[in-house]
Amino acid sequence: MKNAIYLIPNYLTTEAQPDDISPIVQSSLKTISHFLVENVRTARRYISSLSLDIDISKLQFEVMDKKASRQVIASVMKNWQNNSIGIMSEAGLPGLADPGNVAISLAHEMGREVIPLPGASAIQTALICSGFDGQRFTFHGYAPIQDADCIRFLKDAENTLQKTGYTQIFMETPYRNMKLIDKAIKTLGKHTLFSVAADIFGESQLIKTLRIQDWEKEKVNLHKIPAVFSIGQYPS
Amino acid sequence: MKNAIYLIPNYLTTEAQPDDISPIVQSSLKTISHFLVENVRTARRYISSLSLDIDISKLQFEVMDKKASRQVIASVMKNWQNNSIGIMSEAGLPGLADPGNVAISLAHEMGREVIPLPGASAIQTALICSGFDGQRFTFHGYAPIQDADCIRFLKDAENTLQKTGYTQIFMETPYRNMKLIDKAIKTLGKHTLFSVAADIFGESQLIKTLRIQDWEKEKVNLHKIPAVFSIGQYPS
Repeated sequence: MKNAIYLIPNYLTTEAQPDDISPIVQSSLKTISHFLVENVRTARRYISSLSLDIDISKLQFEVMDKKASRQVIASVMKNWQNNSIGIMSEAGLPGLADPGNVAISLAHEMGREVIPLPGASAIQTALICSGFDGQRFTFHGYAPIQDADCIRFLKDAENTLQKTGYTQIFMETPYRNMKLIDKAIKTLGKHTLFSVAADIFGESQLIKTLRIQDWEKEKVNLHKIPAVFSIGQYPS
Repeated sequence: MKNAIYLIPNYLTTEAQPDDISPIVQSSLKTISHFLVENVRTARRYISSLSLDIDISKLQFEVMDKKASRQVIASVMKNWQNNSIGIMSEAGLPGLADPGNVAISLAHEMGREVIPLPGASAIQTALICSGFDGQRFTFHGYAPIQDADCIRFLKDAENTLQKTGYTQIFMETPYRNMKLIDKAIKTLGKHTLFSVAADIFGESQLIKTLRIQDWEKEKVNLHKIPAVFSIGQYPS
């Protein structure tokens, strides 16, 4: 193993599913003892779930959450300049929705090698499941919280899709999922294709693409279930 | 295993690296005998490389390449309506740059269950390696072929980044990579951050984010090496 910054994929779902994690991740974890993580408890639980036969109490963890400044993360990385560092998010790939990209940008500035390990991304998995164009797309992060902003956001996304063909992907805070679907049904055109990928790889996984008019009749319960939404077009 | 449409990740690199593939993909492959694939030879070689102890000569493959029409793929899927079907691309996840999304959209129209299997995506891996914002980004597919169009595309991407903050991701046909980097150096602002992720998970893997002014001095050879490019901003 090289002395480098390793980007370590975590589970997408809260249920431990070691079979979802590739052997190269497992063997890499055996050689890394310094970790910058979004949440120490989740990180320990993840490593422990993989049954790697390592002494987790000897690993060093530093928290890299939303409160950690760039300076704090930089000083940890400076202290650990002679060690490989694993970057780990609470779920999925690091450096997307967490402060992992602060650490990764610092790695580039410090001239340290960045090595990704293969793992699934919720966004990309949702996209391939949708049946929509995967060659041109935009991911918007979380939909706006305020009703009026969210409705404008949905309308803008639909307009952009119609004008450019780019698939439009976004998320919602899980406890607001049902309100979002309701707003989408009321806001988007009835023929617009709307895709949901919820609890990806989990026991209640739900993958469905339907026209808005058919979502009205569909009874799904996504309350508090992590989900990725997209609108797009089927290939002709 | 359910009777469903399975989205099967392939290697990102041309070198066989079974350790990059998660155990759930391997166990799923043992139960699927019907495949819609971009390239039959690549698909057979992939399954064979995983040493799954199955008789590959008994598997059924149908080609779903760029020449295959929606009607042809629909008729294959109708014939196989009582079988699970594996969808496989030449590299990486199916349904992004290949006609897999035709099959997946048909699956939704036929009301068949779509089940993704965990695997890495080159786009998403490049994005997390860049150090750029992973919460808001656009993927543009391949850069335009004509010089003038490509230069306009790069300028537009840089403008959009500056106006919206959305990370801009794109690819180039590998034998034109060096020309693309040259155009980027001549077109983009000297402080603009430009990221390259080439031969991801392969032996010549190169992951680097530098300002345009530093790319000028950097000697890299990406000729004919699959690469993902992005421009973006580091988090503050």
